[in-house]
Amino acid sequence: MHRIPVGVLGASGYAGRELCGLIARHPGLQLAFAAANERAGDCLNVAGRTVRLEALADVALSRAALVFSALPHGVSSSWVARARAAGAKVVDLSADLRPGTGTDLSIPYGLTELNRDRVRQADVVANPGCYPTAILMGLLPLAKHDLLAPGGTIAVSAASGTTGAGSSARPDLLFSEVAEDFRAYGVGNGHRHLPEMRSVLAELGADNDIVFTPHLLPVARGILATMIVPLTHQIDDPLELWRAAFADEPFLETSVEPPTLRDVTRRNVVRVSATVARDMRQPTLIVLSAIDNLMKGAAGQALQNANLMLGLDETAGLPV
Amino acid sequence: MHRIPVGVLGASGYAGRELCGLIARHPGLQLAFAAANERAGDCLNVAGRTVRLEALADVALSRAALVFSALPHGVSSSWVARARAAGAKVVDLSADLRPGTGTDLSIPYGLTELNRDRVRQADVVANPGCYPTAILMGLLPLAKHDLLAPGGTIAVSAASGTTGAGSSARPDLLFSEVAEDFRAYGVGNGHRHLPEMRSVLAELGADNDIVFTPHLLPVARGILATMIVPLTHQIDDPLELWRAAFADEPFLETSVEPPTLRDVTRRNVVRVSATVARDMRQPTLIVLSAIDNLMKGAAGQALQNANLMLGLDETAGLPV
Amino acid sequence: MHRIPVGVLGASGYAGRELCGLIARHPGLQLAFAAANERAGDCLNVAGRTVRLEALADVALSRAALVFSALPHGVSSSWVARARAAGAKVVDLSADLRPGTGTDLSIPYGLTELNRDRVRQADVVANPGCYPTAILMGLLPLAKHDLLAPGGTIAVSAASGTTGAGSSARPDLLFSEVAEDFRAYGVGNGHRHLPEMRSVLAELGADNDIVFTPHLLPVARGILATMIVPLTHQIDDPLELWRAAFADEPFLETSVEPPTLRDVTRRNVVRVSATVARDMRQPTLIVLSAIDNLMKGAAGQALQNANLMLGLDETAGLPV
Amino acid sequence: MHRIPVGVLGASGYAGRELCGLIARHPGLQLAFAAANERAGDCLNVAGRTVRLEALADVALSRAALVFSALPHGVSSSWVARARAAGAKVVDLSADLRPGTGTDLSIPYGLTELNRDRVRQADVVANPGCYPTAILMGLLPLAKHDLLAPGGTIAVSAASGTTGAGSSARPDLLFSEVAEDFRAYGVGNGHRHLPEMRSVLAELGADNDIVFTPHLLPVARGILATMIVPLTHQIDDPLELWRAAFADEPFLETSVEPPTLRDVTRRNVVRVSATVARDMRQPTLIVLSAIDNLMKGAAGQALQNANLMLGLDETAGLPV
Repeated sequence: MHRIPVGVLGASGYAGRELCGLIARHPGLQLAFAAANERAGDCLNVAGRTVRLEALADVALSRAALVFSALPHGVSSSWVARARAAGAKVVDLSADLRPGTGTDLSIPYGLTELNRDRVRQADVVANPGCYPTAILMGLLPLAKHDLLAPGGTIAVSAASGTTGAGSSARPDLLFSEVAEDFRAYGVGNGHRHLPEMRSVLAELGADNDIVFTPHLLPVARGILATMIVPLTHQIDDPLELWRAAFADEPFLETSVEPPTLRDVTRRNVVRVSATVARDMRQPTLIVLSAIDNLMKGAAGQALQNANLMLGLDETAGLPV
Repeated sequence: MHRIPVGVLGASGYAGRELCGLIARHPGLQLAFAAANERAGDCLNVAGRTVRLEALADVALSRAALVFSALPHGVSSSWVARARAAGAKVVDLSADLRPGTGTDLSIPYGLTELNRDRVRQADVVANPGCYPTAILMGLLPLAKHDLLAPGGTIAVSAASGTTGAGSSARPDLLFSEVAEDFRAYGVGNGHRHLPEMRSVLAELGADNDIVFTPHLLPVARGILATMIVPLTHQIDDPLELWRAAFADEPFLETSVEPPTLRDVTRRNVVRVSATVARDMRQPTLIVLSAIDNLMKGAAGQALQNANLMLGLDETAGLPV
Repeated sequence: MHRIPVGVLGASGYAGRELCGLIARHPGLQLAFAAANERAGDCLNVAGRTVRLEALADVALSRAALVFSALPHGVSSSWVARARAAGAKVVDLSADLRPGTGTDLSIPYGLTELNRDRVRQADVVANPGCYPTAILMGLLPLAKHDLLAPGGTIAVSAASGTTGAGSSARPDLLFSEVAEDFRAYGVGNGHRHLPEMRSVLAELGADNDIVFTPHLLPVARGILATMIVPLTHQIDDPLELWRAAFADEPFLETSVEPPTLRDVTRRNVVRVSATVARDMRQPTLIVLSAIDNLMKGAAGQALQNANLMLGLDETAGLPV
Repeated sequence: MHRIPVGVLGASGYAGRELCGLIARHPGLQLAFAAANERAGDCLNVAGRTVRLEALADVALSRAALVFSALPHGVSSSWVARARAAGAKVVDLSADLRPGTGTDLSIPYGLTELNRDRVRQADVVANPGCYPTAILMGLLPLAKHDLLAPGGTIAVSAASGTTGAGSSARPDLLFSEVAEDFRAYGVGNGHRHLPEMRSVLAELGADNDIVFTPHLLPVARGILATMIVPLTHQIDDPLELWRAAFADEPFLETSVEPPTLRDVTRRNVVRVSATVARDMRQPTLIVLSAIDNLMKGAAGQALQNANLMLGLDETAGLPV
């Protein structure tokens, strides 16, 4: 059976390694190269096989029909251009080409379920950030049905595992510092994912302010977003909205119980619950949304987009 | 030096054990008895010494000048009455006598910094819950200065370590289930601490709805509350409010950086930060408040109250 | 494509649930039933699908061509007999039929790589314990080459994740107790896996005493065994012995670096290193062996055996 | 009350910070300075107070009656000389002056219980390593009673929390890498603490080889050493040896149950159990020894030694 060659740039980080593992187990793809700057020459253990990291500068990009760039923000976009020049399609996991950054609007935002048809036709896709994936998939049905109270504040408190902070050796990410701890960061709407979320919500017609407070969890993987959402009016069975919106989606799940990290880790899914807040004057929903930050929040969704761009089954090689 | 005899009911649980440890290290107290129903006869290792758990029914309550009841909700109040009948003062760590439960309003609510004078005179004190301690101490300066936007929703997302859920062997609290996980519970304003918080806030004149979403963290100790608070108007240096309110308080701290669990664990303190949310039409603060659920959230605050009730230095035996 | 129906008894425990997940993803099997006593009626989330636990007493065993029993020790053997009577082959994950227990010697011990041919022919297989799998695969090449110093003591210190202790709600397995802790148990050669190890080593001609000290790790999955092994004589390149022994084995790996839990979790492998102890009068090796206790230590190896018993590819459905 | 001024060099690391906290709570000491090279200018939160780190080069060493050096190995000894020249006594927590390093034998090795009288008279003390403290205190009674089988191998498998590896930002110590993992290091007798252990055991007349295999635990604090010890002859009640040896020692504990990290963390103690291995031809004990690597394994023992050197109560300021 023919396997399509794909390459990974930035393969030494957590998202890049996750991609290499997914590609190694994919029935229709093969890994043409795994490249990195920082650990070039090192070997990764990928699904029981050894993969050698090439230096970024040495990669023959044309060996791949599609290139995933998991390079750092700011560095990635120039490699996207090189890969395109070499004839490869590209899924860019960095923030460089995402909405809200002032870049080329013709590049589809790869929140697959929102833009499936545009992704299928695209040569380049801007893969969403992990927080925006969890949060936007939790809010989409409300936005589409004009249920968000206009002008109301959506309070989003979210928590991420440490792989979301990258693999650089930062003192604040040492085990000795993170274990037994829990802390907020980017407090006061300072997180770089906000413009991306705001831009997509605005496109959907939502007129809401967001307060977004991310936290660092003492776990390696997973994101849980807890969203307090003011509504135009009371809804009796709120989860029904998501059930309808997610009905034919292979990677979107609803849950009566609050979704937990364990429900979603190592799976390419978003899992959502929605509960009416009792004893409130302002009709209010609590929407909970959980993903694996490395899967649906990064490598898994990137592969989902690549499957569409390459004409493969959208679910191929993706764990549910 | 004379040491005042005090007793602990419910000494087999986490709060009870923490109390025994604090009493053992206290310069002016001695442990008259440590009683429990579930593990009577077992021995605790308390600060290097062995303490034997008596059966609850066998305890001579009159041996203690003051009794701490860390018995379960519903069970505690009758033991409070017995201890009073035996002549002892009582600090009740259960929810039985707290505001919002419809009980005797003459019993002071032991959020020490709010009710210090009443606590000093009291024979019985209702010790606050862990979540209310963190949340109310974070909101008090705003309530006192009438800065809470009337009718506005305060969105509280809080996370607690597992000792807050008690020491009963519940399958969902096994290490295999909690590690690598993060989950919400009591979603939709279903947590039993809400009436306590609402009642105290109402007393302070606040006219706000609260959405309270607690979460379970994979850590043993600590609570962090993240509060999104609508204001009557924009404030330039919000933390200044807490600095002024906390100025002479030995156990209340402000922090420019977001407080973390590590800042507060094993210490009898509340640590608060306050940050203006940017890019908002509604003036909004993010208030973060961190405590150790077993210290300022339970045993530490109970001892702080007992110190006052016994005429001792309020800070005696309390780690900062 | 035809899928062979298989059933799981004891599906509510960790090994049973792992089996259900592996079967759901297996290209040649389908789950005929998942039965349990304790949580009958509950639903499991298995690879994105919902599986309902049947009551043990209600199961039609004949619906399965092969039955996995992950029932507790002592309970399992009678269900093995019933499944056999119903015409099904059986892999028994309990200790009931393992060597060293005085049971039927005609039942092969399912340490697959040791007894592959007997397993292939068998109707019933006794699946090994998790500790014996890690330890025996680490010692086998030494035993086969008569390199173990006769009469010498093999000191085995091993550590397991909490899923190895089962899913019953025991107070000592609560997150609050296990986190930040590390403890030995069964100290003094009191662990029930010892007869199994001794029996297999004796069969291989080894004349050694073992001191086996298991420990409980604050992780959910994985076993690492650290073995101090006295040799008949010094060996220059000890790892070469395992390289040769493991050469054609899909699930046995050697490593120059010490194997870690992260190398093996969620994979059906044993990973071994061997290092000469310096500055010793008695020639001595340090052998390290790592497995995932739920995969190669339980469900994975059970499926490996089932693949052979059903005439399927030995590696089908098994993650490497 | 007069407090003796003491200083800390290397106060930015974990042991140095622990020392600052102990000094802040000590009834007879005050912190004259806390100095570091790496984070000079930073502030530490020490027991609720802010302590500013001075640059090492700027410290007036003569302000302290006693200096603790928690500087890195290789750097420390020259600062010991400078502090001595400035008239201060010194406790050196580095390995620079410990036995087995070829240095000045007149400097007492500060395993306090072994060398109490020499420490009391000393101007400089070499504070033991964390692993040697746990291991030597576990073996001492056997060595003193000539119970170690001459020429026999002592197999020591020990596990440490991550603070034992220091606070430098190493990629292998990131939370994402250490959580859910367990790994050996320095395998094959490559750990730098071995000469220290061997040297002390030899002084005690023991003629044994040691195989020492340290492991990294996913916990922040604590060491557990599991020692398999060949004896000259069988002993009936082995723990009695330690009970007798530890009888008047404030910081040495025996335990019938295996000691765990939770028994000892944040306490300046060594806790030991001893169990006969069953079914062995060679009489063999399993000795388990637990300490907090930052307390009795570093800062606590350093303060215990300083108390003696300064003529204070040996137990002052030390948590049990």
